[in-house]
Amino acid sequence: MAAEKGLTPRAEDFSAWYNEVVLRGELADYSPVRGCMVIRPYGYGIWENMQRALDRMFKETGHQNAYFPLFIPQSFIAREAEHVEGFAKEMAVVTHTRLRASADGGLEVDPDSKLEEPLIVRPTSETIIYSMFAKWVQSYRDLPLLINQWANVVRWEMRTRLFLRTAEFLWQEGHTAHATEAEAEEEARRMLGVYRDFMDNWMAMPPVLGRKSDSERFPGAVRTYSCEALMQDNRALQAGTSHMLGQNFARQFDLKFQSESGAEEYAWNTSWGVSTRLIGGLVMTHGDDTGLVIPPRLAPYQVVIIPIYRRDEERALVLEKAEHAKEALRNDGVSVYLDAREGMTPGAKFYEWERKGVPLRIEIGPRDVAQEQLVLVRRAVYGEELRKETVGEAEALAGIRTRLEAIQQAMLAAAVRRREQNSYRGVEDYGRFREIIDGSGGFVYAGWCGSAECEARVKEETKATIRVLPFEEFRTPEAPARCVVCGGEAREEAVWARAY
Amino acid sequence: MAAEKGLTPRAEDFSAWYNEVVLRGELADYSPVRGCMVIRPYGYGIWENMQRALDRMFKETGHQNAYFPLFIPQSFIAREAEHVEGFAKEMAVVTHTRLRASADGGLEVDPDSKLEEPLIVRPTSETIIYSMFAKWVQSYRDLPLLINQWANVVRWEMRTRLFLRTAEFLWQEGHTAHATEAEAEEEARRMLGVYRDFMDNWMAMPPVLGRKSDSERFPGAVRTYSCEALMQDNRALQAGTSHMLGQNFARQFDLKFQSESGAEEYAWNTSWGVSTRLIGGLVMTHGDDTGLVIPPRLAPYQVVIIPIYRRDEERALVLEKAEHAKEALRNDGVSVYLDAREGMTPGAKFYEWERKGVPLRIEIGPRDVAQEQLVLVRRAVYGEELRKETVGEAEALAGIRTRLEAIQQAMLAAAVRRREQNSYRGVEDYGRFREIIDGSGGFVYAGWCGSAECEARVKEETKATIRVLPFEEFRTPEAPARCVVCGGEAREEAVWARAY
Repeated sequence: MAAEKGLTPRAEDFSAWYNEVVLRGELADYSPVRGCMVIRPYGYGIWENMQRALDRMFKETGHQNAYFPLFIPQSFIAREAEHVEGFAKEMAVVTHTRLRASADGGLEVDPDSKLEEPLIVRPTSETIIYSMFAKWVQSYRDLPLLINQWANVVRWEMRTRLFLRTAEFLWQEGHTAHATEAEAEEEARRMLGVYRDFMDNWMAMPPVLGRKSDSERFPGAVRTYSCEALMQDNRALQAGTSHMLGQNFARQFDLKFQSESGAEEYAWNTSWGVSTRLIGGLVMTHGDDTGLVIPPRLAPYQVVIIPIYRRDEERALVLEKAEHAKEALRNDGVSVYLDAREGMTPGAKFYEWERKGVPLRIEIGPRDVAQEQLVLVRRAVYGEELRKETVGEAEALAGIRTRLEAIQQAMLAAAVRRREQNSYRGVEDYGRFREIIDGSGGFVYAGWCGSAECEARVKEETKATIRVLPFEEFRTPEAPARCVVCGGEAREEAVWARAY
Repeated sequence: MAAEKGLTPRAEDFSAWYNEVVLRGELADYSPVRGCMVIRPYGYGIWENMQRALDRMFKETGHQNAYFPLFIPQSFIAREAEHVEGFAKEMAVVTHTRLRASADGGLEVDPDSKLEEPLIVRPTSETIIYSMFAKWVQSYRDLPLLINQWANVVRWEMRTRLFLRTAEFLWQEGHTAHATEAEAEEEARRMLGVYRDFMDNWMAMPPVLGRKSDSERFPGAVRTYSCEALMQDNRALQAGTSHMLGQNFARQFDLKFQSESGAEEYAWNTSWGVSTRLIGGLVMTHGDDTGLVIPPRLAPYQVVIIPIYRRDEERALVLEKAEHAKEALRNDGVSVYLDAREGMTPGAKFYEWERKGVPLRIEIGPRDVAQEQLVLVRRAVYGEELRKETVGEAEALAGIRTRLEAIQQAMLAAAVRRREQNSYRGVEDYGRFREIIDGSGGFVYAGWCGSAECEARVKEETKATIRVLPFEEFRTPEAPARCVVCGGEAREEAVWARAY
């Protein structure tokens, strides 16, 4: 194989860098179907680790998994008025159910198989799920109903990007029904908190939390809450949302229950979801000009062992030691890969696993075997250098889990630091606001009068949007007095940014 | 709620019994979309346990998970000739990608959004997956490529049955590429063995293994291997298949590699799958006139604890003991549910959990608390009675895992016994053959001349088909000499049955 060209540097073209990292890191590939991607084993391994962590969190908060149909009758989509507006646009529509032989020896759609009512490939499942809830819920004793679904969904996007925006993607969608408004509100907030916990402590991608403005609300929701993360190019990524749906869907799908007092009431719903988009967020939060950097808790391989030798008698010794290290780590619960491939230089292996973002590398050569030591190389973390140490073998093996945990923490700290360095608070002047958005980018905290006009003007003039109206703990201690756009009285603080 | 009617007995109407068990056991429900079911949390819990066990087996045999697009271009389906014949019939076809507001205020398909080439919702993924393999495989060093996908697939079936035959179902599909024919053959057989291991040791549903006749082969395969299980109504269920695809798909999708000698060769493929149909098999293997019976290794709840009390002071004592038992079992890795619901008699709870097939029930009343004992009730296993024992508390808790394991073994033994009791060997006379098929049903082992005519005649006259040409270990020791249909020389022994 010809010597590989390095990646396009982030500073030169962030978008080209992103695609190269995803493709050359073997996370995903383009498919023959426009806008649909293939998630390759290495990328899917990350997704499986994400699923495992989230699924446990969902179950610990009382949710059960279930599975609802891929297809939704067209008439269902039309029922909830806002939902129609928001989703009735670009969707895959199934109109026929049979192919037949064509005159030219190929296949063609059989016109006789036309469906009376077209079926929509689910873009999200509120309608079909709440229609089922209506069958299952009779009394307050059946509530709360706390369901989650892991599924594929389809939105016919015109401009697609691997992981960030694809026609089909994988996600989970939580759907719950409650007896009271307060309980539903609490649930919507609780699940946003679960997402935050996951993003902080597993992804090392610290989000800012808050409520969406009306224009950015989920179609059909009363309130949408969001986790917004800041990527390295200083654009925001909406990483997870949780919706308080009120009784909007319950009314449309007749989801009623008999309350404790005997009255018939509509249930209160929430829905919440995260998707394979998170993998894109992971790449853009931690990757560098060498490639991916994966936080240890989500890494398909946390450690890779590279044996180094020249002569055959060295090979046996080194491989024996490497096997021993592998077994010791595996028994300790570490996910480890021993790269004993022949016909490849150690240097080429170093480069491949750095490109794939494995957090920790162990090198073992004949000298290390003789001196009972291992060489540990930590993958560079954002803003720091790659770190190489030589450590006594027993001490090294016993300390790997601690080192991985330290890397996890370092990655979170670095990401928090970067986010804060690129957050601008107390911006009062619209000129300065535009200068930041058009220049470095980042999260701009500024006052907002609450008018849709000011919001729309910013979007038109700068492409920035209100990412969230931040929760208390994220707000600037001194609340802004004026709207950064019109200078009118500020109703609240908003976080603005250009977004994916 | 009115007193619940019992289930239709199996002997009266097996099919009605099956539907009632599935619906009232809350495994699944009908959806508003014709032929598509909803898998409810209790049914999905079984599927999650199945997935966990199978996924581990796949990974232990070197496979990695990945994800490929839901949609397949129509032209892909047309490429492999037999594949077209077998699959190009009833499929969901996406022809448009947008809805628009209709004159009556509803929605309609936007004719301007018509796709140039229709997309098929995958009925199986050979075509799209091997087209991707062709991008990834260059040299023999890239082989074998061992991939599995957990996914939903759609086949537009006209007559559907919950779990057994639905338009959409969940499954896994393994797809592999190998450098040699021998390796591919070995892989196809290995994965059939994995399925058998799973069906025997997890489902307690012992299959007969063998090769399919040409007429029952997977469209596009060189050889199809199958696991066939015998249901309680003596009909066969094709429970899992593994296909040696030869180079058929490799040729169509240009899946080539450079061999060690430098020559360019087509790869050899296999594919193999099991689906949510297995849940239907579980129901029909173990269920009884009370409801479900779930083998402990797949049960969402292995143990249910029912507290029994009348007065308030009893309640506290009993619940404390029940909580203690729950914690002890949970710490021991047992999946346990403490049913402390108020306003429901213990009898109603007994009935509910028997209907849902929980393998073991623990009853705790005031007398049990006083005497430091627990009442253990084993769910009836096929052909046996429900068993009730009173055991000292410490001994009972320490022995639960052993008891569950014994139940698992008893279920397998009972299922093997039933299968053998309903297998007929050495049938030489076609009159007798028809008598069995038209009468009791079951697996009939008989000679076959190998002609498609005899096979077709049996199918037409009796609706029975050759389930498999059994592997050595399943064959009758004395090989049949004559074809049971035409009396000509038998080429091999075949297992015939009516099937789902």
